[in-house]
Amino acid sequence: IISGTTSRVHWSGDRIAGPFMRLSLLLLSTSRLSLLSAHSKPVFGVWPRLFASSQSQQKQSRFSKKIAHKISDYLRVMADPAIEAQLAPLRAGVKEYGDLIRDLKSKGAPKIEIDKAVVELKARKRKLEETEIALAPKEASFDRLKLEDLLKRRFFYDQSFAIYGGVTGLYDFGPMGCALKQNMLSEWRKHFILEEGMLEVDCSSLTPEPVLKASGHVDRFADWMVKDTKNGECFRADHLIKNTAEKMMADPKVVPETKEQLTDVLAQIEGYDDKDMHEVITRFNMKSPITGNDLTEPLAFNLMFPTQIGPTGDFKAFLRPETAQGIFVNFKRLLEFNQGRLPFAAAQIGLGFRNEISPRQGLIRVREFTMCEIEHFVDPSDKSFPKFAKVAGHKLNLFSACNQMDGQPAQEKTIGEAVDAGIVANETLGYYMARCHQFLMKVGVDPLRTRFRQHLSNEMAHYAQDCWDAEILTSYGWIECVGNADRACYDLQQHYKATNVKLVAEKKLNEPRVVNFVTAAPNMAVIGKEYKKEAKKIQSALEQLTEAEVEDLEKQIQTGMYKLKLADGEVNLKKEMINVKRGEKRVHVEEITPSVIEPSYGIGRIMYSVLEHAFRQRDGDEQRSYLSIAPLVAPIKCSILPIFANEKLSPIIEAVREKMREHDLSYKIDDSAGSIGRRYARTDEIGIPFGVTVDFESEQQPWTVTVRHAETMEQIRVKVEEVGSIVHSMVSGRMEWEEAKQKYPIYESKNEEK
Amino acid sequence: IISGTTSRVHWSGDRIAGPFMRLSLLLLSTSRLSLLSAHSKPVFGVWPRLFASSQSQQKQSRFSKKIAHKISDYLRVMADPAIEAQLAPLRAGVKEYGDLIRDLKSKGAPKIEIDKAVVELKARKRKLEETEIALAPKEASFDRLKLEDLLKRRFFYDQSFAIYGGVTGLYDFGPMGCALKQNMLSEWRKHFILEEGMLEVDCSSLTPEPVLKASGHVDRFADWMVKDTKNGECFRADHLIKNTAEKMMADPKVVPETKEQLTDVLAQIEGYDDKDMHEVITRFNMKSPITGNDLTEPLAFNLMFPTQIGPTGDFKAFLRPETAQGIFVNFKRLLEFNQGRLPFAAAQIGLGFRNEISPRQGLIRVREFTMCEIEHFVDPSDKSFPKFAKVAGHKLNLFSACNQMDGQPAQEKTIGEAVDAGIVANETLGYYMARCHQFLMKVGVDPLRTRFRQHLSNEMAHYAQDCWDAEILTSYGWIECVGNADRACYDLQQHYKATNVKLVAEKKLNEPRVVNFVTAAPNMAVIGKEYKKEAKKIQSALEQLTEAEVEDLEKQIQTGMYKLKLADGEVNLKKEMINVKRGEKRVHVEEITPSVIEPSYGIGRIMYSVLEHAFRQRDGDEQRSYLSIAPLVAPIKCSILPIFANEKLSPIIEAVREKMREHDLSYKIDDSAGSIGRRYARTDEIGIPFGVTVDFESEQQPWTVTVRHAETMEQIRVKVEEVGSIVHSMVSGRMEWEEAKQKYPIYESKNEEK
Repeated sequence: IISGTTSRVHWSGDRIAGPFMRLSLLLLSTSRLSLLSAHSKPVFGVWPRLFASSQSQQKQSRFSKKIAHKISDYLRVMADPAIEAQLAPLRAGVKEYGDLIRDLKSKGAPKIEIDKAVVELKARKRKLEETEIALAPKEASFDRLKLEDLLKRRFFYDQSFAIYGGVTGLYDFGPMGCALKQNMLSEWRKHFILEEGMLEVDCSSLTPEPVLKASGHVDRFADWMVKDTKNGECFRADHLIKNTAEKMMADPKVVPETKEQLTDVLAQIEGYDDKDMHEVITRFNMKSPITGNDLTEPLAFNLMFPTQIGPTGDFKAFLRPETAQGIFVNFKRLLEFNQGRLPFAAAQIGLGFRNEISPRQGLIRVREFTMCEIEHFVDPSDKSFPKFAKVAGHKLNLFSACNQMDGQPAQEKTIGEAVDAGIVANETLGYYMARCHQFLMKVGVDPLRTRFRQHLSNEMAHYAQDCWDAEILTSYGWIECVGNADRACYDLQQHYKATNVKLVAEKKLNEPRVVNFVTAAPNMAVIGKEYKKEAKKIQSALEQLTEAEVEDLEKQIQTGMYKLKLADGEVNLKKEMINVKRGEKRVHVEEITPSVIEPSYGIGRIMYSVLEHAFRQRDGDEQRSYLSIAPLVAPIKCSILPIFANEKLSPIIEAVREKMREHDLSYKIDDSAGSIGRRYARTDEIGIPFGVTVDFESEQQPWTVTVRHAETMEQIRVKVEEVGSIVHSMVSGRMEWEEAKQKYPIYESKNEEK
Repeated sequence: IISGTTSRVHWSGDRIAGPFMRLSLLLLSTSRLSLLSAHSKPVFGVWPRLFASSQSQQKQSRFSKKIAHKISDYLRVMADPAIEAQLAPLRAGVKEYGDLIRDLKSKGAPKIEIDKAVVELKARKRKLEETEIALAPKEASFDRLKLEDLLKRRFFYDQSFAIYGGVTGLYDFGPMGCALKQNMLSEWRKHFILEEGMLEVDCSSLTPEPVLKASGHVDRFADWMVKDTKNGECFRADHLIKNTAEKMMADPKVVPETKEQLTDVLAQIEGYDDKDMHEVITRFNMKSPITGNDLTEPLAFNLMFPTQIGPTGDFKAFLRPETAQGIFVNFKRLLEFNQGRLPFAAAQIGLGFRNEISPRQGLIRVREFTMCEIEHFVDPSDKSFPKFAKVAGHKLNLFSACNQMDGQPAQEKTIGEAVDAGIVANETLGYYMARCHQFLMKVGVDPLRTRFRQHLSNEMAHYAQDCWDAEILTSYGWIECVGNADRACYDLQQHYKATNVKLVAEKKLNEPRVVNFVTAAPNMAVIGKEYKKEAKKIQSALEQLTEAEVEDLEKQIQTGMYKLKLADGEVNLKKEMINVKRGEKRVHVEEITPSVIEPSYGIGRIMYSVLEHAFRQRDGDEQRSYLSIAPLVAPIKCSILPIFANEKLSPIIEAVREKMREHDLSYKIDDSAGSIGRRYARTDEIGIPFGVTVDFESEQQPWTVTVRHAETMEQIRVKVEEVGSIVHSMVSGRMEWEEAKQKYPIYESKNEEK
């Protein structure tokens, strides 16, 4: 489940406890930093200093080359005592409130008091992080417009229905984006579904209302919006307040007192509910930014797309906001498929839909998106993971709740240490976090710009045990790209309640147990006479009574009536309708509702991060930008370029093609008239990692070609016979470029790449 | 574009010409035969006799083995002169009307008269085909319930949201169905997108209303339904008539005259419009089958799922009914991506949604489905295809419009012959038909149950040039699974009209041409004064006038005013506002609107056909059913079964696993306690083509295992070292089982498979 939205509706009475707090998280990331980027040049980002040394083992070669010295530059600057001196008081300020909250909690202080302290804690955390970013060196700056121009021009993706004026929050992927996305999905499928033996399902997007009522989405999956009272135009309430406050503060005539109040508002807005926002709008007399008209009070707007199934119009349905529910409603079939055994994991790759009020930020916040979700079902009393030892030594940047409350940066730890120390709740969750990190590295996310942020206890739903978001640093700030949550038994229980279909697994007891039982057996003859058709429902309701409830029934029915609740009402039962029976039985199994560990991936967000981290400009030629995409997921693996247009080269080109086909390598031939340098630049732009050039020397027997490494622009000369397997080795990661340079003769190009 | 629905709304004035006739086809197949299956046991099917001999070269081994003698049995029976004697008068009856229609057309008879003859022609064709199927030998019968039970039990797919009561027309794919579907999609991507170098896109499902208005879906993508006048319950009008008529005919008290009338109704219903259906409902006093209440007149029900984007409620949108429109609206970007050159093909794999009134027939008619569509853009004046020679010799079963009108069965021809003879309109269309056939064979469709049926001229939209559906014979009858259509320039022109964005390509002229031009140049000063803001619109409208329109303007404006149409109204232009200019210019290119060849695949339908064709029962043990799925797409490639549970075998099992992983082969280990025979049967049921058994002899050095071929239940013994590459060779089709039996020692199992 991907949230990443700040102010989903918080029902005031249920602020910490709502089952959809998982969708209403107060993130450190997205919207806060996008705010920043609105009035400052987007920055390359900044990372906690601690990553510097030890993380380097994990660094991928793509990040350890050209940009390595830049990175170490930033780290040096950030480690500068002068900068740390500026950050120190802010760190202390955060810690003060972290300590206060812990203290309040231990004293059992009223919830409202804790909540207030949390709002202040978050404001201080935010101030700290903004300052860190502001202090990042200038060289770190990154030109998002240039990247966006490239992505649009080479049709990685673009706004949908542009010739009709476009729709915000909807994107079409062109050939390059589509191939990149497909390669990422296919790697995801290999990395998780195949390697872990998961059960993959593919469920309907159209979802009937009762399913999403049970999951909590119908009632609670909403954002606050305000409407222009005259023309009905809608604004997301928190966005409107933020933008208006910023505009007011930028006004030179603003009095210092107002400015201070507005600063407070901006700092605290993530914690606001509808009443708070209404108060702010009224106090500062905020209006529609378009018309200047008055605004309504904040209204809850459900973020699901509504529709109806069938022609009658009374079968309400929604487009699913996540793929997870499709797995939960199939739990019984999946358990059966797994021959009744726990644990097992099911996974789904598919579309999710969210009707955002006013989406911005490109692929980060969209209305239709591909997600990959895993639901790992496990015995709640044993969340150990057999293969955990395999990943225990894997290092992650963990930004624990404690770090956050103490104003400390993320810390690098092995996942084994983190589970041992109780920082991460259990092995299963820890295993998925390590595998998540491995996946992100495989597809080309920069390890230095990746962290796992733990949810603070008040960010989590009441039932959740622990939750760690994989966050990636982009020019929009730290973006939540993957959620890894231990959701306990909540989802299965909700669907059980709604359908009366038991969603449980049988657990074999080590030895059979003798248990006393008490049941309320219906006297169907009597019940049938009085309740006719309802008799069956009564029978099934009686079967579901807990032992305590049966004891209670027994007491009440002695002296009068017992009110039995049915799904759709209640009935009065009399003494003669029920026989309470007691006895002993040997049981060999017990029924348990499995816990669910849920890793949930937003593929569009990861893809955007990959593109941003892959964006480079050639030293000394800033106009010449290119993408250094990991070969494993690069849309096209190899270009084939004849150095000049000549029929004589055709058979050699055809031979190279054949080699590429043999090794299932996607390729692109560019035999257009441009200079070879210009053609290299064109292929670099779309992230083709390797280029085969057929040149003057190629014709000598045996035929040879050069292979160019886009990242370094270096070339080697190889036999046509071998070119397929050499490129394949480098694409699959079995051979690094450095190794290839050792093995094959280096070719010094006579053609300046200009 | 997949239609497969009989009575989409036909607007009476536009019956032949409607742009959505492609969605309103009168099929030979689906609903007609499902009707049949409602009152007779589903049959295995029947195929035109001509397929028998020559097609055999193309037969896949899976169909040439066990079932081969059965097939030849049927063919022998069907070639029986006694049967042909029964069919002959029916064939003659069809031909009579085919000739009549040709005659009427050549005489330029009124459309209404031709339409009436076509309705009768179809009724006769249907009678002929039903008789053919009825005469099929009894052994051909196939038990669909048994297959459905297997598919449900082993969770290939099942109804969505079953624990909530289920939703008709929505299905969830379980692990086996999901893997089969994924393997088919990945084969499709390889076969088309990679091999042909297509541009793949991935566009939004949510589609704004104006896009689907332009495409014709908003106005014409509908079915006729009737409502219960009291409770509002809805029925698809043609289904209701069909079912009611059948029930009435089954009544022994029905008088012969009524029975005859009803027979006519059933024969002609596919050609009925709303008035015809209303007349029948009234004449026979048809009522709601549930309540017996009266019914309304037929109402058009649009089959798209409606929703809104954003919070205001006034941004209407639909879920796309096909993926094609996403490609058309991206035409400009794609052309640019292809550096402005024609021809090129774009492809999309994704979801389509259709709000069927009352879907039945399992995966054949669903509300949410995966489709694969190609739009091949080509110069309308040159539809040759460079690679056509590669497929020219490929043989297809072609059921041409002529065959259909003459009452003849499909005929086998090479696609080269068919294009030469003008039966198939052009090389590009022919190329895609051949590639389509190759794809269907690869994924395991029975060649004997595949044909290409050409649309009759009145089935096609007015703009379409030619259309051939790949139909597959299943127990539901001949099912349209792929449409291959030459749609001319229709779609691009529609979006151009709606958006004013030119969707054209530039075509280089062989030599520059000097052309006269006449334009209406606006006098902006004068126009601006009078029309202010509208001046720009006027300017652009003037630019779009054709030369003839400019000449017309010139004439009119001399004597008064010229009414110029704008997108949203019109304006009056006076003489002083316009300068008509004439001159000569040299042009080097001309603008053309490309034609579109559109192959459109319904993956769910193909998948269902594959499963039906793969369904087998063991000779002598009819209870033991299994699936013989082509290894290329089988959900799991190999099972690994220890013959007994023993720790000593674990290292050997682990070594086999490692070999499977090395070759990227999916596998399933079954070490449960059941007998080896029972475990083989379980793996056969889910279509695992190969099974590795670790047995008593395995431990001897070098370790060996047996490999079992599920289809024949034969086994060979191979070294563990080689098992991965041997299974891989057989899965990828590089080695047949017969060859493996030659190379490796045959192992005679001591374990009876019982």
